[in-house]
Amino acid sequence: MVRWLLKDQNTPLEDARAGLVELVNPKKVHLYEHGYVVLDKVMGDDLDIVNNAKASFDVFADEVGATEKAILNFLMRDRHGSPWEAVVFRFLVRGPIFANREWFRHRMASYNEESLRYSKAKEEFYIPPLDHIRTQTGKPGAYTFTQIEDPNVIKRTIDLFTETQQAAISAYHEILEMGVAREVARDVLPVSMFSTFVWTVNLRSLFNFLALRNDSHALREIREYAQVVEQLASEACPYAFELFNKHGRVCP
Amino acid sequence: MVRWLLKDQNTPLEDARAGLVELVNPKKVHLYEHGYVVLDKVMGDDLDIVNNAKASFDVFADEVGATEKAILNFLMRDRHGSPWEAVVFRFLVRGPIFANREWFRHRMASYNEESLRYSKAKEEFYIPPLDHIRTQTGKPGAYTFTQIEDPNVIKRTIDLFTETQQAAISAYHEILEMGVAREVARDVLPVSMFSTFVWTVNLRSLFNFLALRNDSHALREIREYAQVVEQLASEACPYAFELFNKHGRVCP
Amino acid sequence: MVRWLLKDQNTPLEDARAGLVELVNPKKVHLYEHGYVVLDKVMGDDLDIVNNAKASFDVFADEVGATEKAILNFLMRDRHGSPWEAVVFRFLVRGPIFANREWFRHRMASYNEESLRYSKAKEEFYIPPLDHIRTQTGKPGAYTFTQIEDPNVIKRTIDLFTETQQAAISAYHEILEMGVAREVARDVLPVSMFSTFVWTVNLRSLFNFLALRNDSHALREIREYAQVVEQLASEACPYAFELFNKHGRVCP
Amino acid sequence: MVRWLLKDQNTPLEDARAGLVELVNPKKVHLYEHGYVVLDKVMGDDLDIVNNAKASFDVFADEVGATEKAILNFLMRDRHGSPWEAVVFRFLVRGPIFANREWFRHRMASYNEESLRYSKAKEEFYIPPLDHIRTQTGKPGAYTFTQIEDPNVIKRTIDLFTETQQAAISAYHEILEMGVAREVARDVLPVSMFSTFVWTVNLRSLFNFLALRNDSHALREIREYAQVVEQLASEACPYAFELFNKHGRVCP
Repeated sequence: MVRWLLKDQNTPLEDARAGLVELVNPKKVHLYEHGYVVLDKVMGDDLDIVNNAKASFDVFADEVGATEKAILNFLMRDRHGSPWEAVVFRFLVRGPIFANREWFRHRMASYNEESLRYSKAKEEFYIPPLDHIRTQTGKPGAYTFTQIEDPNVIKRTIDLFTETQQAAISAYHEILEMGVAREVARDVLPVSMFSTFVWTVNLRSLFNFLALRNDSHALREIREYAQVVEQLASEACPYAFELFNKHGRVCP
Repeated sequence: MVRWLLKDQNTPLEDARAGLVELVNPKKVHLYEHGYVVLDKVMGDDLDIVNNAKASFDVFADEVGATEKAILNFLMRDRHGSPWEAVVFRFLVRGPIFANREWFRHRMASYNEESLRYSKAKEEFYIPPLDHIRTQTGKPGAYTFTQIEDPNVIKRTIDLFTETQQAAISAYHEILEMGVAREVARDVLPVSMFSTFVWTVNLRSLFNFLALRNDSHALREIREYAQVVEQLASEACPYAFELFNKHGRVCP
Repeated sequence: MVRWLLKDQNTPLEDARAGLVELVNPKKVHLYEHGYVVLDKVMGDDLDIVNNAKASFDVFADEVGATEKAILNFLMRDRHGSPWEAVVFRFLVRGPIFANREWFRHRMASYNEESLRYSKAKEEFYIPPLDHIRTQTGKPGAYTFTQIEDPNVIKRTIDLFTETQQAAISAYHEILEMGVAREVARDVLPVSMFSTFVWTVNLRSLFNFLALRNDSHALREIREYAQVVEQLASEACPYAFELFNKHGRVCP
Repeated sequence: MVRWLLKDQNTPLEDARAGLVELVNPKKVHLYEHGYVVLDKVMGDDLDIVNNAKASFDVFADEVGATEKAILNFLMRDRHGSPWEAVVFRFLVRGPIFANREWFRHRMASYNEESLRYSKAKEEFYIPPLDHIRTQTGKPGAYTFTQIEDPNVIKRTIDLFTETQQAAISAYHEILEMGVAREVARDVLPVSMFSTFVWTVNLRSLFNFLALRNDSHALREIREYAQVVEQLASEACPYAFELFNKHGRVCP
């Protein structure tokens, strides 16, 4: 499915396309039954962030030494934002529509998503893992969620998810078979359906995403995606992420 | 529901809040059974667009006369974009999730949407009007849609919409009643569910929206929303819309 | 110069252009010899911010009471950003190019600026007031500035400003008179020259601007502009600004 | 100066930092006496653009064959914009302030620029090459520029540039030597001064930049920069640029 990530590993470094090199070991992390996150490509690293900042002086560094670490610390602590835009990531994500809907609210990024106007729906839905079936107490903005232990509630919830998903996909196929357009038939499908998208985002916008979505107040499902995104991205610029955590996980 | 639009009509013009005046006759246009578009507020008009452009000369006009119309025509014809950002609209929209999902892809705008993490779902779904049940032929990017005439197909399609929607809302309520969180229960609901959002957008971004969504290639349902949006917006800056149509409905 | 702000004060409230009402007492605040800030128009107020947030629940308020103030406080404290985009301002600004250059780095806004490709330069330059002639000590990011008291330094600095400005404007006119294009002649002009621009910006982006530019680390001249902007904007949504100050002047 | 571009050429492809590979032959193109454009890094190529579009179908291609070229052609012809955001460039640019000022108006990009609050001005100014000294006739938006042939005008223009630049830099140094802050002293410097910046921009925004700035209506100096940018960028995704030219050089 992500064949384009798995290309020739022998691309010469002298590639005339200016630094275009594929991920040789694309990292695909699976979530739930049908979801995943792939870190497709990255441009930039900790050194690029420092050098974006040092553009203020029209001098540049060769490596991230003690001085450069001090600059990065200053930038994060005092929330100087623009240098963090030096690093750009591309992810391929497959998530449930209800989570994707929150994801797409982040406007400082590029998106291309699977469309059921064009392609046929796959029978792939989110069914909550047992420990995701939870109660909600408290007020908006300060909810507490507690895992439900009652096996009858768990079983009945999962049955209801499955039944409505099955009814929806059956209706979808029957409507299609009568000759109705895909874009009409898909209206019966639930927001638990999985959908794939490509996400291109710079590190500053990514920090904003992580501050909001890899947080205890976030929807649990998007948080689990955000945790994977954070783990993959942090390998490209580890010191940036160390500082993000050190200074309160606030977008600079 | 849109009570905040219906405030005191006697706000004095000398309002210290600098030009803040409510729409005294907010225009609410209904679509389908549960949808609507309200033009809540507008800032700016044709004259503001001209004056944004005339900022290049540090001189400004008092009214839209022949000279100003010529300037506006030049701006649209030669696609000088920034002056059109002078006019800003706020709409209140209630549409089906599948249409809202396309809408929210327009990033140069502000959105606040109803959340089923916080509020309880209403039993309001999109059911296609008879003449919206259509076939799809041709290739992606060049589909042709034809209204289906067969009364059996129409009846069966509507029955399948209704049955899956009823099954979904019943499952939703049953899951809620067992004490499961709203944000979990809502996963069973279909993308035909209605959802309300506030949309703040400037005229340039609105032209881009209309060029793509009030177009024969657009999804029929979002196109019908876009037609209402265009009709409401065009009253605030009629000459701008006259030129938009004259010069090929391309975002400047 | 800002004639377009001074239009008919008798515009009926029932204006068909949907809420378009001019500022009847446009506020023009002068800075330095040739600079100013005018708050031209505003769309929205504290209530609109609350209602943008309440869109999450698909219910809306009529006025800003205790409950609404609590919501606004929560939004600012926990940095929920999107509702603050409900309020949009348009300013007309005339500032020195060196300050405008910092201003235009704020990308979430619309700009239209005077162009010396089209219009002829006016003989209007920034000359530092006596108390703006300052020393700079410390390291980048932590400079301390101290007013210079030595009358000889003050006098000589002002003379050098004046002499280079006069030499530049004379050269500019001489080059023009030889028939050379305006866009070439203007290259000799200094960054202390004043330039006018229109700025349309929403409250969220404005808070970001003020957090950075109305701050002790900001360039003094842009800070003085930012102070005027803040004073004018705060009249449109006073409670929002009260909270901005209460919660550390951080962009939500 | 751009040392950071010239790092170790032996970075192993198996780099754990996910595709981060430096340009081994960074391309630095000089303009005027003190300006340049360096293409520092690129992420993505023609194949990535196709695959961004194919995300609509949740299937991806391995190479740019006839089918993929047809898709790219369709995307450009019908102005489907988002897939072109798949390719991201980073440039290092040194240009005169008057050109940079136009450049920075392009908001869908990241910038970090040399600051004369922090660093000391270098004695590097733009002096028009002989064939850049031009007359301007016609109306705004439709100017015609003609090279001036009169050697007296040419000589006098260059003398006036040089004299005012020398007077300005002398004044700058004298003000600094009296202990006045750099950020005050720099106000006397002309907009012909060179300034360095890092620019990160995706291909869609780059096409918009090129449509406006590598155009006969653009300021000649920024156009010459845009031509270099276009030549460097087009090597990374040649088919995309072939189509940009084929379909009228309009931003998709």
